[in-house]
Amino acid sequence: MAPPFTPALPSLLYCYPWMPFPRRITIYLHEKQISSTLVKTVRVSDPQDGDEVVDRSFPSRPRGSLPILAVRSDANDEDGKPSQWFHVRQSMAIINSLEELCEQKLYGFDSPMGSLFGRDLMEQVRVNEVLILAEELTVIWNPVRTFGTKAGTMSYPQGAREMLRWVRRPLLAIEKWWQESDRDVCFSEPGISTL
Amino acid sequence: MAPPFTPALPSLLYCYPWMPFPRRITIYLHEKQISSTLVKTVRVSDPQDGDEVVDRSFPSRPRGSLPILAVRSDANDEDGKPSQWFHVRQSMAIINSLEELCEQKLYGFDSPMGSLFGRDLMEQVRVNEVLILAEELTVIWNPVRTFGTKAGTMSYPQGAREMLRWVRRPLLAIEKWWQESDRDVCFSEPGISTL
Repeated sequence: MAPPFTPALPSLLYCYPWMPFPRRITIYLHEKQISSTLVKTVRVSDPQDGDEVVDRSFPSRPRGSLPILAVRSDANDEDGKPSQWFHVRQSMAIINSLEELCEQKLYGFDSPMGSLFGRDLMEQVRVNEVLILAEELTVIWNPVRTFGTKAGTMSYPQGAREMLRWVRRPLLAIEKWWQESDRDVCFSEPGISTL
Repeated sequence: MAPPFTPALPSLLYCYPWMPFPRRITIYLHEKQISSTLVKTVRVSDPQDGDEVVDRSFPSRPRGSLPILAVRSDANDEDGKPSQWFHVRQSMAIINSLEELCEQKLYGFDSPMGSLFGRDLMEQVRVNEVLILAEELTVIWNPVRTFGTKAGTMSYPQGAREMLRWVRRPLLAIEKWWQESDRDVCFSEPGISTL
């Protein structure tokens, strides 16, 4: 798969420092040891504090929900102007694309400790299941979490309480998963052959 | 990536016929033209109607939230008994693993019309963003959708109403996305070079 363009590095990751969706990218960057020369985190102030880039030497924040990864080609457009920014949205889409760059060792990205997403199809399936469940958990947790703050739109206490029951569902699923006999097979050595 | 075991086909996809998470797998199977000799859909009656396999010639439903894909090795265990079932949960994890089998053309899976997940990194990013947003939408829509039915746990009308506002957020995001100048670039020919 030939890279269609070469990005100007570092790419800029716009995020609030404390929210759950941005946070998992910063955890990912740390776990993968991705240097700030490749992906630079650009802190944005909380929505109630202006929702703007704290260090004004960076371009202002792109529209839309954070986190957003902003990437620009290192080549100019045909008319000689710097090329447009290309924006990646949704934290899991950002992580997936960074992981792909690391796995393909493109543009200086690397994966010295191997893939976080599984070494073979079986592992990938298991990792994927947990990732999707974590996505579900975070999505449902988000309205509950922000209840009563200016950051959130959940104005109704009983609504938050109701949704808390939906948060417990995937938590319960995770608990069940770990009790199942086929759940840990793919991570045992050489367990896969016993399937 | 060597396949660690050969599955006995067809794999069994346990699902309710009408719920949104199972439904997207049946749509996927149809779009990918995956034959029932590879993945056989096993209908399970709605929770309020017994939550059991309709055609009793199939093994009874695995525990846990449907959809579940059940796969078994075509080899016997070391003690000569048929091997254990291996279960894949979460509709997106099921779709991702089927897509991987199609792309790698393993066990008779094929991808005659190409990947649904993007032909290059740029397309993959765009497809991934929409998939994650669709996941968010479906996860949030689920409690609203089932309000007032025995299938759902959302007992509080105002809770459902509150969550409907959270459904509108990702819908609004999709609308905004399509108005953005960089959004459709990767699908134009040869637009990528203008990034």
